[in-house]
Amino acid sequence: MDVHALAFDVFGTVVDWRAGVSGEVRRLLGDRVDAPAFADAWRGRYAPSMDRVRTGELPWTPLDALHRSSLDELLAELGVPGVDEPTRAELVLAWHRLDPWPDAVAGLTRLRRRYVLAPLSNGNVALLVDVARRAGLPWDLVLGAEIVQHYKPDPEVYDSVPRLLALRPEQVLMVAAHVSDLAAARDRGLRTAYVHRPDEYGGLRTPPAADPDADLSVSSLPELADRLGA
Amino acid sequence: MDVHALAFDVFGTVVDWRAGVSGEVRRLLGDRVDAPAFADAWRGRYAPSMDRVRTGELPWTPLDALHRSSLDELLAELGVPGVDEPTRAELVLAWHRLDPWPDAVAGLTRLRRRYVLAPLSNGNVALLVDVARRAGLPWDLVLGAEIVQHYKPDPEVYDSVPRLLALRPEQVLMVAAHVSDLAAARDRGLRTAYVHRPDEYGGLRTPPAADPDADLSVSSLPELADRLGA
Repeated sequence: MDVHALAFDVFGTVVDWRAGVSGEVRRLLGDRVDAPAFADAWRGRYAPSMDRVRTGELPWTPLDALHRSSLDELLAELGVPGVDEPTRAELVLAWHRLDPWPDAVAGLTRLRRRYVLAPLSNGNVALLVDVARRAGLPWDLVLGAEIVQHYKPDPEVYDSVPRLLALRPEQVLMVAAHVSDLAAARDRGLRTAYVHRPDEYGGLRTPPAADPDADLSVSSLPELADRLGA
Repeated sequence: MDVHALAFDVFGTVVDWRAGVSGEVRRLLGDRVDAPAFADAWRGRYAPSMDRVRTGELPWTPLDALHRSSLDELLAELGVPGVDEPTRAELVLAWHRLDPWPDAVAGLTRLRRRYVLAPLSNGNVALLVDVARRAGLPWDLVLGAEIVQHYKPDPEVYDSVPRLLALRPEQVLMVAAHVSDLAAARDRGLRTAYVHRPDEYGGLRTPPAADPDADLSVSSLPELADRLGA
């Protein structure tokens, strides 16, 4: 492989959204909800909310605003009492305060010595910058959905990486813990690396140990650095 | 000022384009041209080339491609003999290998502890990433012309900073060594800081010591950090 740049999915691949969101839900809503179940239900609305943008039902809407709409719907459906406006705004910021998986910063730091690194996430730019500064993720630049006003798996998102970095598609390696993200990247000519994150769903779902269609499958970012000679 | 993010002009403000381009011209063209005069003439075609995009005469064209066209025109006009294709491609990369002013990295490193930092340059993204990695410029993200497919001073470029960082315009400080860049930023509601770079034009032009219309005028990036309490 003649790879020059690595593009990373973020939620689940680099950071642990379930623990982070559950923790903030517990802090802000206390025992009014079951925090991990609430995080799962909120995340469950993620793909459908983006699909409303992808199909044109909604105009371009950054993820923070989709998270807010999903939150309001969920609180109404569950009948959670007394969640005021400042608390709702603070809950949306839970997604800006996610911790990285324990291996992530060490792996990225090694990979960056040799490769250009960027997130390629559906998170909006402000969210990705907040997560990176708080967690110390050493990105060279921030790419992703908001830059091109399309959500993954729309092809525009994947195409933006070689276009903006002046590379050929096969010089970009997409790194993700989700086989559907990698399949969409491969469709646009990118190389792909699967990261096994068995704890992403707290045991409720069991991700495959490897992706037979990816160029590489690893169980951590330091292992990815090993495999790429970084 | 309630500033959260700093957006930097790059050529002349953070890096010394004239020394860098002259050096590469000297290395690659030897005594076939007067290297500083060639750098000045090449840079002289910069604004007119972008104006062809800004007026719609050309479709969106990244700066590397404009640099290449200007180079070809200049070599033809000067009648410089025997400059082959690989040499022309290498000359365009001179703009990817510019050194920072001696104070720049130290100033940016201090500023980044407190503020989100991004370049807001007419350079294309690949160029800005190459310059940053080589020079160690600690950007949080890369913004600028190519992200919005408009060249400064088009308002879309300045507006992209608060939009993508989810800030109000007055929470963004534009930092530049050129009063026209700052004037355009102020027109979009950004705060402005002028940096005096007396050596940008090698003594051929004398930039003003301060910009009376800017919120701040400084003579180095560490001085900017002092003034901003970073």
